[in-house]
Amino acid sequence: MSRTTIHDIAKELNTSPSTVSKALNDHPSISAATKELIKTTAQNLNYRQNRLASSLRSGRTNIIGILIPSSDIGFFGAVVHGIEKIARSSGYNILLFQSNVTGEYEVEGVETLLQTSVDGIIASIAKDTPNLEHFIDVKKRKVPLVLFDRIKEELNAPSVVVDDYKGAFMATEHLIQQGYSRIAHISGPQHIKIFNDRLRGYVDALKMNNLPIDEDLIQYGRNSIESGKFSAERLLGRTKHVDAIFAVEDFTALGALQYLKQIGIRMPGQIGMIGFGNESFSPYVTPSLSTIDQQPARMGEEAFTLFLEAMAEKTNGAASPELNAEPKKIVLDPVLVVRESSVRTPQA
Amino acid sequence: MSRTTIHDIAKELNTSPSTVSKALNDHPSISAATKELIKTTAQNLNYRQNRLASSLRSGRTNIIGILIPSSDIGFFGAVVHGIEKIARSSGYNILLFQSNVTGEYEVEGVETLLQTSVDGIIASIAKDTPNLEHFIDVKKRKVPLVLFDRIKEELNAPSVVVDDYKGAFMATEHLIQQGYSRIAHISGPQHIKIFNDRLRGYVDALKMNNLPIDEDLIQYGRNSIESGKFSAERLLGRTKHVDAIFAVEDFTALGALQYLKQIGIRMPGQIGMIGFGNESFSPYVTPSLSTIDQQPARMGEEAFTLFLEAMAEKTNGAASPELNAEPKKIVLDPVLVVRESSVRTPQA
Repeated sequence: MSRTTIHDIAKELNTSPSTVSKALNDHPSISAATKELIKTTAQNLNYRQNRLASSLRSGRTNIIGILIPSSDIGFFGAVVHGIEKIARSSGYNILLFQSNVTGEYEVEGVETLLQTSVDGIIASIAKDTPNLEHFIDVKKRKVPLVLFDRIKEELNAPSVVVDDYKGAFMATEHLIQQGYSRIAHISGPQHIKIFNDRLRGYVDALKMNNLPIDEDLIQYGRNSIESGKFSAERLLGRTKHVDAIFAVEDFTALGALQYLKQIGIRMPGQIGMIGFGNESFSPYVTPSLSTIDQQPARMGEEAFTLFLEAMAEKTNGAASPELNAEPKKIVLDPVLVVRESSVRTPQA
Repeated sequence: MSRTTIHDIAKELNTSPSTVSKALNDHPSISAATKELIKTTAQNLNYRQNRLASSLRSGRTNIIGILIPSSDIGFFGAVVHGIEKIARSSGYNILLFQSNVTGEYEVEGVETLLQTSVDGIIASIAKDTPNLEHFIDVKKRKVPLVLFDRIKEELNAPSVVVDDYKGAFMATEHLIQQGYSRIAHISGPQHIKIFNDRLRGYVDALKMNNLPIDEDLIQYGRNSIESGKFSAERLLGRTKHVDAIFAVEDFTALGALQYLKQIGIRMPGQIGMIGFGNESFSPYVTPSLSTIDQQPARMGEEAFTLFLEAMAEKTNGAASPELNAEPKKIVLDPVLVVRESSVRTPQA
């Protein structure tokens, strides 16, 4: 008993499996006419999910492994939902492994996923990953690997990221437009590219708006609530002339916000605040936190589409990934989310 | 090359693997002397994690599957951390499957985990699970199954729960002790046992303190922020005589809190509020939310210990689970967490 897959539908219509998957999932990049055609064809071919039967026939498991630093960080949870949304209707199931942000567990995670014969791995890399042997191993075994958010260029794998530089630029420029001029930045560990990108975006937004760069206004934190509190305390201890803070991520912003409230500073009147990441708590704190949204659901969808493309390449016996010098890299636009913490009242 | 497992250490010392695991993880129930003995023995036997080698030898995968409704709910994430903490040092890795709170995906999840040959499944059951065939299938295959939090007694599986009745009683009594007397309850879907238990705890706390039960003060919501807003609006529309709200879980409490803030009600002065679940956002909202903590990390540790016991039973060829009429059920004590939202100032 043969089962219709998205590959069959693609073949029938002379299009790609990822186009079929996108159409079946109402992806905005596919035209209404194409969606209609693909959906009708899917119906005619009696397309439906039947994972186990397919697995027995194809030798595939139809399982994708996702490796994330932590499910406590709402951003990663939202990316996973994005992957799930599109993966499930393509007949794939998802298993998650959380590395708890440590490289040691990440190695275990890759081993575990390979051991369960996943068809592919979609990963965001742990902060302190000491070397990349485990990921190189994935590539050697010809298991499709897609990276998102925290990527390593040297792995030469297809990836999806958000434009961190641009997001930081937007956040800083938003504060400037609100009339703030002594804008501090609490940054993160600089060996991680995304945090360095955000620092550069902050600096360039100041420059472009003819504001001076003041080293006293830059703190290097560790991406946590505690670190945000501590950094805000140091900032205000060092100089009284701070009227806004751009924090490298929302947990840091939350810590800074708590400290400022504790010492009786009015936000956004006396000090404006913006974070990065649009964490799940950000709308609910007081004042609600302005931030940069990284389009995590979209990131997940794109990552899964890249995985499907890699699977298709593998099936079609395309050039081995090692020879593919320019893996696809999708860069998503960040989205400014304006809430109470950064909107100055006219009188302030 | 043979590898030392916790089973070898247990055999050497004539104790159980779960005792060894607990000792190696500094579980409070194990005496210092026993811990010392077990740790020394582990060292002498050159005990260390080596999962893949062990898997090849034993036919075990040393992977446990965890099935949770959603990793967006901080409680489940914290349980997973509890399981991880103790599982990893016992040489087990963890794969997560999130059912997104729907029964359909839960069936897929069980299939996926069985397909990857996990050694056991630790699960919390989705809200709308239509039938339990998929879990019965797990038991038929003799794969150890442990349930936590959202359990089904009829599955006759070992389980860990928190005493929901007691937690609700404590929450309600705390409000009474703070001088509130017109205490409303926003409950959840009543076909889920834990929500019914919490309703009963609320009712009995009122009775025990000689306060009347007023049906106008009980709302049935759907465990979401939106539902919390809506329920609070209905409560206050129905009667002006509400001076406190006990919400069945923290997302509901958050919605109610947002609504009350929006219409200008002071908390805890005019209306006191307490939730249930100690979600990650609860300390950060304004006012910070009093709640009931369910000891999720402890719940995870106990669930893993039950899994080890089930593995040991299986290995020793003990009676099949179907014949085991009284599976072990661990009931944890809830912990009252007092924050700003429920502590009445003396003047109020």
